[in-house]
Amino acid sequence: MNSPQVTREDGRADDELRPIKITRNWLDHPAGSVLIEFGRTRVLCAASASEGVPRWRKGSGLGWVTAEYAMLPASTNTRSDRESVKGRIGGRTHEISRLIGRSLRAVIDDKALGENTIQLDCDVLQADGGTRTAAITGAYVALADACAHLGVTGALTGSVAAVSVGIIDGIPRLDLPYVEDVRAETDMNVVMTGAGSFVEVQGTAEGAAFSRAELDALLGLAEKGCADLTRMQQEALAE
Amino acid sequence: MNSPQVTREDGRADDELRPIKITRNWLDHPAGSVLIEFGRTRVLCAASASEGVPRWRKGSGLGWVTAEYAMLPASTNTRSDRESVKGRIGGRTHEISRLIGRSLRAVIDDKALGENTIQLDCDVLQADGGTRTAAITGAYVALADACAHLGVTGALTGSVAAVSVGIIDGIPRLDLPYVEDVRAETDMNVVMTGAGSFVEVQGTAEGAAFSRAELDALLGLAEKGCADLTRMQQEALAE
Amino acid sequence: MNSPQVTREDGRADDELRPIKITRNWLDHPAGSVLIEFGRTRVLCAASASEGVPRWRKGSGLGWVTAEYAMLPASTNTRSDRESVKGRIGGRTHEISRLIGRSLRAVIDDKALGENTIQLDCDVLQADGGTRTAAITGAYVALADACAHLGVTGALTGSVAAVSVGIIDGIPRLDLPYVEDVRAETDMNVVMTGAGSFVEVQGTAEGAAFSRAELDALLGLAEKGCADLTRMQQEALAE
Amino acid sequence: MNSPQVTREDGRADDELRPIKITRNWLDHPAGSVLIEFGRTRVLCAASASEGVPRWRKGSGLGWVTAEYAMLPASTNTRSDRESVKGRIGGRTHEISRLIGRSLRAVIDDKALGENTIQLDCDVLQADGGTRTAAITGAYVALADACAHLGVTGALTGSVAAVSVGIIDGIPRLDLPYVEDVRAETDMNVVMTGAGSFVEVQGTAEGAAFSRAELDALLGLAEKGCADLTRMQQEALAE
Amino acid sequence: MNSPQVTREDGRADDELRPIKITRNWLDHPAGSVLIEFGRTRVLCAASASEGVPRWRKGSGLGWVTAEYAMLPASTNTRSDRESVKGRIGGRTHEISRLIGRSLRAVIDDKALGENTIQLDCDVLQADGGTRTAAITGAYVALADACAHLGVTGALTGSVAAVSVGIIDGIPRLDLPYVEDVRAETDMNVVMTGAGSFVEVQGTAEGAAFSRAELDALLGLAEKGCADLTRMQQEALAE
Amino acid sequence: MNSPQVTREDGRADDELRPIKITRNWLDHPAGSVLIEFGRTRVLCAASASEGVPRWRKGSGLGWVTAEYAMLPASTNTRSDRESVKGRIGGRTHEISRLIGRSLRAVIDDKALGENTIQLDCDVLQADGGTRTAAITGAYVALADACAHLGVTGALTGSVAAVSVGIIDGIPRLDLPYVEDVRAETDMNVVMTGAGSFVEVQGTAEGAAFSRAELDALLGLAEKGCADLTRMQQEALAE
Repeated sequence: MNSPQVTREDGRADDELRPIKITRNWLDHPAGSVLIEFGRTRVLCAASASEGVPRWRKGSGLGWVTAEYAMLPASTNTRSDRESVKGRIGGRTHEISRLIGRSLRAVIDDKALGENTIQLDCDVLQADGGTRTAAITGAYVALADACAHLGVTGALTGSVAAVSVGIIDGIPRLDLPYVEDVRAETDMNVVMTGAGSFVEVQGTAEGAAFSRAELDALLGLAEKGCADLTRMQQEALAE
Repeated sequence: MNSPQVTREDGRADDELRPIKITRNWLDHPAGSVLIEFGRTRVLCAASASEGVPRWRKGSGLGWVTAEYAMLPASTNTRSDRESVKGRIGGRTHEISRLIGRSLRAVIDDKALGENTIQLDCDVLQADGGTRTAAITGAYVALADACAHLGVTGALTGSVAAVSVGIIDGIPRLDLPYVEDVRAETDMNVVMTGAGSFVEVQGTAEGAAFSRAELDALLGLAEKGCADLTRMQQEALAE
Repeated sequence: MNSPQVTREDGRADDELRPIKITRNWLDHPAGSVLIEFGRTRVLCAASASEGVPRWRKGSGLGWVTAEYAMLPASTNTRSDRESVKGRIGGRTHEISRLIGRSLRAVIDDKALGENTIQLDCDVLQADGGTRTAAITGAYVALADACAHLGVTGALTGSVAAVSVGIIDGIPRLDLPYVEDVRAETDMNVVMTGAGSFVEVQGTAEGAAFSRAELDALLGLAEKGCADLTRMQQEALAE
Repeated sequence: MNSPQVTREDGRADDELRPIKITRNWLDHPAGSVLIEFGRTRVLCAASASEGVPRWRKGSGLGWVTAEYAMLPASTNTRSDRESVKGRIGGRTHEISRLIGRSLRAVIDDKALGENTIQLDCDVLQADGGTRTAAITGAYVALADACAHLGVTGALTGSVAAVSVGIIDGIPRLDLPYVEDVRAETDMNVVMTGAGSFVEVQGTAEGAAFSRAELDALLGLAEKGCADLTRMQQEALAE
Repeated sequence: MNSPQVTREDGRADDELRPIKITRNWLDHPAGSVLIEFGRTRVLCAASASEGVPRWRKGSGLGWVTAEYAMLPASTNTRSDRESVKGRIGGRTHEISRLIGRSLRAVIDDKALGENTIQLDCDVLQADGGTRTAAITGAYVALADACAHLGVTGALTGSVAAVSVGIIDGIPRLDLPYVEDVRAETDMNVVMTGAGSFVEVQGTAEGAAFSRAELDALLGLAEKGCADLTRMQQEALAE
Repeated sequence: MNSPQVTREDGRADDELRPIKITRNWLDHPAGSVLIEFGRTRVLCAASASEGVPRWRKGSGLGWVTAEYAMLPASTNTRSDRESVKGRIGGRTHEISRLIGRSLRAVIDDKALGENTIQLDCDVLQADGGTRTAAITGAYVALADACAHLGVTGALTGSVAAVSVGIIDGIPRLDLPYVEDVRAETDMNVVMTGAGSFVEVQGTAEGAAFSRAELDALLGLAEKGCADLTRMQQEALAE
């Protein structure tokens, strides 16, 4: 099934990211805000900083970083219903919000943050695959700006980025757009620190179960992709 | 109470709109989409078109236009909680969604639309006063694009635009940003057709009740503002 | 379309209110309670007074007046479902509750009220058009009784009354019953103080948009109607 | 513990009902409506009739009778929060709604009713003990009117009435007002047919558990009270 | 209709309980836990003890006992939907939770319990009729263990057990399994103390209303059944 | 940090499972039911089979397998609140329910299942770490019984089992109980087919991020554990 002449619809190499664009300070109000684009996927990441922490953490001397993810109704191919109108948050939304929060907390020193709260909001304006990995990658930049705003840059113990990988027609590929995502036999999201360690690995067999060798190939691709994204985050923050 | 030397913080004349920007086709998926800016207020208006109508309208031969309004959590000065997380939509959101829907239906011929549904989503990305009036004004343009997409431009019987007016320090003013809005003694939102008729008039005394003369002055300002917005809508649609 | 011989189904003049009946102390428990009737529309308005204010207002020295509106299921022509059973309050209910609250607060001096709360409950027992205007008009009387009960009559800076007006078959008319309401091209609710100033003006084009001249005619009718209602409120309170 | 000189606050004999008042056709819209008063307890019972039955009963040839009970916020001594605002119906409300529905269905022949639905709404306007028994007693009269309205009086196989009984200071008493209800050691609600059979018996030891002898005494009182109520229902329906 | 040769499907005498099995300490975490079986009905009763009481009871010196009842989805003949998924607790669940709580509080001395809370959870693992009576009977044993765990055995003023009785084909019978329950003309749940007094009597005519004589017969059967259950509870606690 | 003499609290080898117990047919009603125990973790897995599929799948000829996971309140160390009482399902519950469903669907041939639905309910009776992996492992056995019950054993394309692995004090370990789980630096849940392929890999850095070498070691342990579990599933199904 795997033949060399199979190429991706958008002409990319199998280990190549889509065009990535990181626009800082897209909003006026929050301490940090980033519009991040992975190809046509567009996520608005806002980091709102406030003094104090939730009640259960008061007096601990520790800060708190948390995240919420959501999709605008018209961000998807076919309009999706609003979760506020349905009156409940779906399982997928819950899952991704929790994933983003855990990923960012992996590079935060709660003590150095002090009793401050940073709330990340990742709202998908347009979805074309990889919204959760774009959200994590953009949210890190917004978080860095919010730490600077609070004067606690020492609270960041590293950086974090994320990318999707998958097997399509037997070929491992990096950073799947929607058309590839729906056809993937295996789909994996990998979150890594800038130093090259793993924060989250979430692989799912959509069709056939995958072998250890396939898993290893996907992890290799993800390491490459996260390293590229880390460099782009640094460039954006250097501006 | 009204003295000539009092000027607005942003230097505008009392009957002058903020800089208005209408960007069409800001999204790839929906039939129509507009990013509209009234100064720093930024609302993303998407018009999703689909064949068929809600069950209660089936077989009537009539179309259906409806709208939902929402604010992103980080759009406001201080972050506001997500309504999906709270599990219920607040009264203000309900009110504005209904207002937008009524305003657009005022210029729609349901019969000419046929059994199609156009769902407007107006999501406030950044709020600086006048979000509902920006939403209506932008949503009309997205609606026009969606009608063209469906091939039913005849379903539009006219255009619709909206603006806020208010009395600040005794002076009637057009298109209030947040700093003026919170200080307004009277606050009015006016929705008008391109032909100069009224669709909605909603005036509220925030402080002291207002006289008939003050009401008349506000209506005059609104007529001027809506006429200006109508011209800008036409220019945007002509591009 | 407008001809002199057109008369209203109930024989009223175009600027004439339906028979209004205000019965004070209809309930034993709350500080103030009024059964108000606008023709066949019957609303039970209760004003429950309690010491203290909501948490966010504590220590301010200011009182708090708020309102909730609801319709009994069998109050309408065709039974409507209970909002408690549906588990959520509809947009219309939210809108009207907020309108009543704002209208009453327009004649309350929060400082003179002191840290007391008055909660208005306006429950529609029977609906025949104009339920929100009946609710406001009756709630004011219940509020006045509750202020007297609390010994803070000075907290009332004036009185407030409300009436609906609309254009039916091209003719502006006062105080619309259901049969007129459903046929109205334009429908407006106006809340005014006893001194003749405006507190709220909410006009909606149900069919065709309305001209400035029509708007002016409706405002004139509303001024007449609110003045009549103010007199009836005074008579009821004088008993 | 039982001494002859102990008398009730309102001067009634231990086996005497409070003044009962049944006002038919209190509302214009529903097929049957009754304002029933047990002393100061006032319940508005409406029976809305409609053709057709819920989906799960379609095609069975059988009708459906159901009931909902609720209390207005200001009906109680101290204002109680609205269940629609809380977003959920409390256990007590659920329990009583189900009790009323079962009680009425006990005297309905579903086949004779045909595929019609009668929805009872029992809304407590003022509460002074015994609201559920007043609701059942009044709802039966509204139900009878609704059956007549539908032309299916044969669907009624009998009548139904209900009363509360309890032991206060060791003395069994009939039809407890609030002041007795809160002090009762045992509290029982009994629903009976006009023919003297039992439909529901719900007895609860609020303080000490009760003996078989006490239970027997309470049942005797309830038989007397229900017989009295049955007579009053007949008189009301004869008018 | 009543003939001597009619026997029960499971061969029991009319006044005979199903095989009862009480297994203490079925769980490791809670202070008391009991798996109780009434024939094939299996209920897991856990009593979680904690210091402190709900806010509204703080400083009173009194303890608090409360209960929640629920059925696992697969416990019933046909799978029933999860109430957590539906987002609301049904009326029947509410009713039974309240009944269990009241029944247990009838044998608790709040003062002797001190400011401690015991939360009973009664989860039906398998349902074959009589789940609420099994729950009460088992919960009492778990409650006794929790009181011992807290060192407040003096807080128990007695024991409590419950059983269902009903009339099937005209014959009063004790402890109905599902097949009898669905055919019962009258269904009654009776909760009694170990000393033979009544705590709750809840009788419902499912088909025809019942006579005083039938009611008396059912109460007699229940007295017998509760006495048997009381003895089994004592045996289980003596182990 | 890693030293040979460090042993596990329960004396197990690092690559050793806890005692596993699989009891089939623990319930009478559902088509398949299993009580599975991983040490003190006890999960009741029920597979309810029914003809037909959800509306959105009708006419496709394909079956549907889905799962719901929940914890009894008293299953945890400290009692946890009921999600039905809170009125919403938490993110963790959603995540695990979705994981179980995906894992089982990985070994189901929808076409061979035909238009039948199998609903898995995994209710945690007692929690001591690894509840989701026990649930998947037990649910597979219940699913196999349900397929046999429906006469569609051909719908199973393989078996599926799951186990947790983690790094504690620098040492990779298999099948973590609660005391190890809370101390783990990295925590991974792995779902594999009986044939040794991966269905899901979910690894999370709880403390420090993990290296590729650590990831590889964990995957090796998981392969060993899943192979052991697969053998036990086969033995249980052979009985």
